Amino acid sequence: MVLNMQPMRTDSTIPRIVICGNLEFASAECESLFKGVAEVLVMNSLSSADLIEGMQPGGRYEGAVGILRQWNGFSHMQRAFIEALPSSVKYISSLGAGYDMIDIDACKEKGIIVAHTPGVGNDATAVTALYLIISALRRFSVAERQLRAGLFDASRVTQGRRDPTVRTLAILGLGGIGLRLAELVHAFPMRVVYHNRRPFVGAPEWCEYYGPGRLDEMLAMADVLSVHVPLRKDTVGLVDEAMIRKLKKGAVLINTARGKVVDEEAMIRALEDEHLSAVGLDVFPDEPTVNPRLLELPNATLLPHLGSISSDAQKLMEVRGLTNLRDLVLGLNVADLVPECR
Amino acid sequence: MVLNMQPMRTDSTIPRIVICGNLEFASAECESLFKGVAEVLVMNSLSSADLIEGMQPGGRYEGAVGILRQWNGFSHMQRAFIEALPSSVKYISSLGAGYDMIDIDACKEKGIIVAHTPGVGNDATAVTALYLIISALRRFSVAERQLRAGLFDASRVTQGRRDPTVRTLAILGLGGIGLRLAELVHAFPMRVVYHNRRPFVGAPEWCEYYGPGRLDEMLAMADVLSVHVPLRKDTVGLVDEAMIRKLKKGAVLINTARGKVVDEEAMIRALEDEHLSAVGLDVFPDEPTVNPRLLELPNATLLPHLGSISSDAQKLMEVRGLTNLRDLVLGLNVADLVPECR
Repeated sequence: MVLNMQPMRTDSTIPRIVICGNLEFASAECESLFKGVAEVLVMNSLSSADLIEGMQPGGRYEGAVGILRQWNGFSHMQRAFIEALPSSVKYISSLGAGYDMIDIDACKEKGIIVAHTPGVGNDATAVTALYLIISALRRFSVAERQLRAGLFDASRVTQGRRDPTVRTLAILGLGGIGLRLAELVHAFPMRVVYHNRRPFVGAPEWCEYYGPGRLDEMLAMADVLSVHVPLRKDTVGLVDEAMIRKLKKGAVLINTARGKVVDEEAMIRALEDEHLSAVGLDVFPDEPTVNPRLLELPNATLLPHLGSISSDAQKLMEVRGLTNLRDLVLGLNVADLVPECR
Repeated sequence: MVLNMQPMRTDSTIPRIVICGNLEFASAECESLFKGVAEVLVMNSLSSADLIEGMQPGGRYEGAVGILRQWNGFSHMQRAFIEALPSSVKYISSLGAGYDMIDIDACKEKGIIVAHTPGVGNDATAVTALYLIISALRRFSVAERQLRAGLFDASRVTQGRRDPTVRTLAILGLGGIGLRLAELVHAFPMRVVYHNRRPFVGAPEWCEYYGPGRLDEMLAMADVLSVHVPLRKDTVGLVDEAMIRKLKKGAVLINTARGKVVDEEAMIRALEDEHLSAVGLDVFPDEPTVNPRLLELPNATLLPHLGSISSDAQKLMEVRGLTNLRDLVLGLNVADLVPECR
């Protein structure tokens, strides 16, 4: 839906903000939040060049102080883009928890403050991880493909199909999403163990902590390893050959975080030689490209990065991202600044 | 694996039993359970004619008193088959909860007692239903098909993708499987409502009962209707056009019970005109044939009757079915007789 909002005031004293991409659920909230606060300009183009051009003198977005970034707008804000922004831009409010697609260093150099929306996608992403866990353990994805190929009975084999109940889920990087997943699987129950550099404040006592000295011990007991670490320079390839081989034979690897956190080649080798019995992946190193070798492997459930793609999560994100941008424009305290900007 | 068990005694005083199809997990338990009790004969053929033939005078299974029926053996025991069994056969121990594939009336006429294994597949089937619920609400199955067709971004649309959390699950026929599903989704939480002819003894108070006079009220509030009634003469087509149309627009229908409980034509029409937003089906009226119209619909997640097909459930079933048959042969009390034989 196109927000066809008229400027509320036409004089130059009211700030202008740009919404990159249409809002799906929170148009009414947007109008209400910015009434008397800022002029809202919606950019329908997904081209970052169009945004830069529109911000030039005489352009449609000239003088804008803030940008709302959405995944369904152009999603990458790398150094060249940030550096090309005019000095009027002071705030970027990004929808979503992960902000690896924004060059924060470049933003800081230009004095741009960046906010994100941590937590709003926790439930949706944990539900995605749970789906992938069930699919991987029970081999449902390959079964549906066989059914659709006319092989109804071919996959009705009990062996190798396992239930989550009473198995052990290891969470690599317990944060909001991992904690939500832990809550969901605790109902089965699954045993939940996790590895963080430090214990997660607020983790219930049934989430068993395995610190840096006990990572190998945790990997050896996991039936399922679910990855929930953010992508940072120090987490690229964190789940490498060595870590994968420390999992027990037949373990399952689930990734709803970022593709580059896992060494894809090592993962594929482990699937091919059956050290891993299955993988469930919502993320890939070179999205939207998917390694064709993954498509050949029967025991891979593959989703196109849908972790937090739900109408529920989207509405939460839009309202929170809009609120963050409004509060930034008003100079209010914003709890959702990315850590680097606090 | 082939059970290559030698007869423990060769004289004719020890009863003989036939295991139809190989045991996957409980061969050792089988040997131990029947030691000194009965001679165990494993039939590798999946042909019911072979069983009847083997039971004739001089045949390999002559004089057998009991049969263990498995889904991976020949699964249908209709009237003609039952009537062709020699009078030596006194017991059928069937693996699985549903026994609609056995003609119980014919068994009773011949004095054959039938046992089944209720409950052992509850967890596995509830996990299957949960998977189908997530897939239907979030549209994961169609997304994976699009990814595999090279359309990674095509399905990353928020609209129409919903999370189970805080939505309402209506269970039609709360029994062991429905109760287990209720436990799993209560963690999200989902609101759980159910319809039975009478309240289910042992249902927790947060499972809200809607009796015969309030079925329409329940249907109108359901985001998800999950079918868990057994197939009987009075449940064929129970979920019919009228019931489907009483669901609110956009509801989701999940069937892990039996295909014939749902009027498939009515369901497909409701999918086509978008009264139903999605279906998740593990069962079909004419398995292994799947209605090709279902394959054309994007919002259908289709599994080849894998509800209780897991190694965990299978081992439980095998041990329980073997124990039932052993106890029947010994003349002990068996709690798992089908209700018609009690």
